[in-house]
Amino acid sequence: MSSLTNARITTRSKLQSIIETKAWNYAIIAVILFNSLLLGLNTSSQIKANFGGLLNALDMLCLVIFTIELVLRIFCYRLAFFTNSDKWWNIFDFLIVAISFVAIEYSVLRTLRTLRILRLISSVPAMRVVVDAVLKTIPAMLSISALLSIFYYVYGVLCVEFFAEKFPEWFGTLPRALYTLFQIMTLESWSMGIVRPVMEVYPYAWIVFVSYIVLVGMIALNLIVGVIVNSLNEITQSKNANNDL
Amino acid sequence: MSSLTNARITTRSKLQSIIETKAWNYAIIAVILFNSLLLGLNTSSQIKANFGGLLNALDMLCLVIFTIELVLRIFCYRLAFFTNSDKWWNIFDFLIVAISFVAIEYSVLRTLRTLRILRLISSVPAMRVVVDAVLKTIPAMLSISALLSIFYYVYGVLCVEFFAEKFPEWFGTLPRALYTLFQIMTLESWSMGIVRPVMEVYPYAWIVFVSYIVLVGMIALNLIVGVIVNSLNEITQSKNANNDL
Amino acid sequence: MSSLTNARITTRSKLQSIIETKAWNYAIIAVILFNSLLLGLNTSSQIKANFGGLLNALDMLCLVIFTIELVLRIFCYRLAFFTNSDKWWNIFDFLIVAISFVAIEYSVLRTLRTLRILRLISSVPAMRVVVDAVLKTIPAMLSISALLSIFYYVYGVLCVEFFAEKFPEWFGTLPRALYTLFQIMTLESWSMGIVRPVMEVYPYAWIVFVSYIVLVGMIALNLIVGVIVNSLNEITQSKNANNDL
Amino acid sequence: MSSLTNARITTRSKLQSIIETKAWNYAIIAVILFNSLLLGLNTSSQIKANFGGLLNALDMLCLVIFTIELVLRIFCYRLAFFTNSDKWWNIFDFLIVAISFVAIEYSVLRTLRTLRILRLISSVPAMRVVVDAVLKTIPAMLSISALLSIFYYVYGVLCVEFFAEKFPEWFGTLPRALYTLFQIMTLESWSMGIVRPVMEVYPYAWIVFVSYIVLVGMIALNLIVGVIVNSLNEITQSKNANNDL
Repeated sequence: MSSLTNARITTRSKLQSIIETKAWNYAIIAVILFNSLLLGLNTSSQIKANFGGLLNALDMLCLVIFTIELVLRIFCYRLAFFTNSDKWWNIFDFLIVAISFVAIEYSVLRTLRTLRILRLISSVPAMRVVVDAVLKTIPAMLSISALLSIFYYVYGVLCVEFFAEKFPEWFGTLPRALYTLFQIMTLESWSMGIVRPVMEVYPYAWIVFVSYIVLVGMIALNLIVGVIVNSLNEITQSKNANNDL
Repeated sequence: MSSLTNARITTRSKLQSIIETKAWNYAIIAVILFNSLLLGLNTSSQIKANFGGLLNALDMLCLVIFTIELVLRIFCYRLAFFTNSDKWWNIFDFLIVAISFVAIEYSVLRTLRTLRILRLISSVPAMRVVVDAVLKTIPAMLSISALLSIFYYVYGVLCVEFFAEKFPEWFGTLPRALYTLFQIMTLESWSMGIVRPVMEVYPYAWIVFVSYIVLVGMIALNLIVGVIVNSLNEITQSKNANNDL
Repeated sequence: MSSLTNARITTRSKLQSIIETKAWNYAIIAVILFNSLLLGLNTSSQIKANFGGLLNALDMLCLVIFTIELVLRIFCYRLAFFTNSDKWWNIFDFLIVAISFVAIEYSVLRTLRTLRILRLISSVPAMRVVVDAVLKTIPAMLSISALLSIFYYVYGVLCVEFFAEKFPEWFGTLPRALYTLFQIMTLESWSMGIVRPVMEVYPYAWIVFVSYIVLVGMIALNLIVGVIVNSLNEITQSKNANNDL
Repeated sequence: MSSLTNARITTRSKLQSIIETKAWNYAIIAVILFNSLLLGLNTSSQIKANFGGLLNALDMLCLVIFTIELVLRIFCYRLAFFTNSDKWWNIFDFLIVAISFVAIEYSVLRTLRTLRILRLISSVPAMRVVVDAVLKTIPAMLSISALLSIFYYVYGVLCVEFFAEKFPEWFGTLPRALYTLFQIMTLESWSMGIVRPVMEVYPYAWIVFVSYIVLVGMIALNLIVGVIVNSLNEITQSKNANNDL
């Protein structure tokens, strides 16, 4: 081993011990919070008019800090950056910084830098835990969501076939019908806004929509129950596993 | 046993081993997905104008495949098709194909072929499991839904008696009142859309509707709790049964 | 004991054995269902015009049957009618028949006979069980509902004080404010219908309403959780009690 | 110990035994209820016009009683008033009475005396228990609410950047956008009121809002499940603790 390589490894391990301290993490979180504030202030046209230059400079400074932090992490962990247990969070951070650079190049995508606020999620350990918990509930929802999608699609096609001609704005094309059915799923203005006007032309339209609402309601109820039962189950199992030790 | 019969049985058992393979199942699912896509494309008047003939031909081809698949299954299982553990799914598939043929004959019912998408549910095993789970929650809902229906009907009759004269559009007949009460049950525009206008004529109308909403809310809460408790119970019991083994 | 008294007691016990049969119960349920149908048909002005006399006669016949049934029950059980385990259901039936007679006298109250449909609840054993289950959840809701009521009242008084002058229709008096707050509790048109117009006059009105919605949401969430936890608890306890036997 | 001090201590312990009786508590609750009624009556301009002076005098009397009660409590418990197990409730009572005095001085803040109704919560023991239970669910909600806030803020900034120019009333500034997003979170008029008009100018606006609704829905579902699971867990643990004794 040459002394140069030796020195490098020492630098790496020193750097790693620094970027793994809590203080470093808090500093990064502070920069993200500051950047979030900047992005919030930037929405005010008055502030932008008066301090636009300063805001942009500070925003750029934050991006520079994020980039340095990312480069340091990649330098320290090398390939492990993309393979260790935090790999998804690392990739998440990498993508957000990468998107920010793309957003500088193409002013159309400038708003994408707003996503940098999301780095709060990957930087605060408590947030990571919550996101993991939320993501864990997805498998329990997956198959029932698939069932919902099938009925959603069938109703979408049916609504276009039935109502496209007379109500092109709501059911003129499949995407429009699916949007309208999503609105009805959330029960927003479904009757006074959509179904009553439709029923003036097609008096039996209520059969389609009431059956849809009841079906969606039943499936949604099962989805909620499924998630609750699943969560309780997991906890019981982890407890039993603990008891067995 | 004649060699002919023997040969037939051999054909049957060979066929059965084919249609019970995963590959066959995947092929059928692919055809259903393709057919669903066709039905979706068919909703676009532009695509229909340009490729209508092709779409119809392909749709017919799918129906032919479904029919062949169904005939093969009936040929293999014979009476068992209507009696084995999958009988309800078999009948479901049978009805959907039968409806498709009726839909060809009577163009008024053409839209019924959209139901073919639902074959996804019977063909994907994971979907069958979900549907079974959803159907299992129905008994827990049944008696409380019956209670809800009684109050629903009583309020329907009351609303017609009280408000039919002045608000014929909403409460003119029992079906209309029941539709309006269903809308109120989903809380859609109940106050600004329905009850405030009614209260301008009958200042005490809020008693009827507020009591209805509170009652329905309480019963719905019990329904949800019932389903959750029931699901948890079932799981605990099946676990205990496993432990006893 | 005189032979007369003896004979009476025999009649009583014979009658009792009759009215406690399932067949008798089914017959009464059939009469209630028939009466419910009559009341439904009676809502149609066309049917009422053509068959109004017949409907009324049949309705009266049903009432006569209910009265006889009630008299028989009182005759059989005597004081026990008001004291045995079914006393609340007996009083319920008694009141409904009594209200029906009042409704004959005063045509203003004619609609009250619609309540007779509710006898389905007391006559079908499964319905009694459900109602008992629903009523059992009330204690778990009581104290949290009281908490909700306190905040509801405070917000009601505040809204009148703040907004009565400029929005008399919504917040002019305490009852109106409470009605409007009930509407907001159900989230119906709260923003586009009520709060946005109010905010045009009082730009900080959102503080009142957003805090109200968040508070009500949190309390409602606790109410639901309370009912679920309570139900699960009761079941676990009854199981443990069974295990101890 | 001088006899004077002695006498004082005797007075203190006598007073303490009085203010800790149930009768005293009931009397105070009665005064709060009476005061709440007064505040309710005060919302009627007619009653205020005729009995305004009387109402104010009685209201002042209630405040005097509350003040005396508070002074007595402070006199009895001394420093313990701010340090014992009920300290938060004591501070709560103290603040409400203090606010009432401020409200007398500045007529602008007159409505703040309405908060006195909230003393019902601190005076009725059952209410304290409920509030404690509700507050206990907050930690389980905290981290997931933080996650929600991050997304809420990101969508707020995005909406201003995208839609501020064309829809200044809804998305003109960050606070307005956050208010509108809160409305959309409650699903009130989100489609017919907000998103459909926006989509007429920006046809792809639905991507922002539908993703927002789905995300909020998923997080809210996890929040509810978290609270339920947490409550069940706590009960199981306290039971196990009991069993171990």
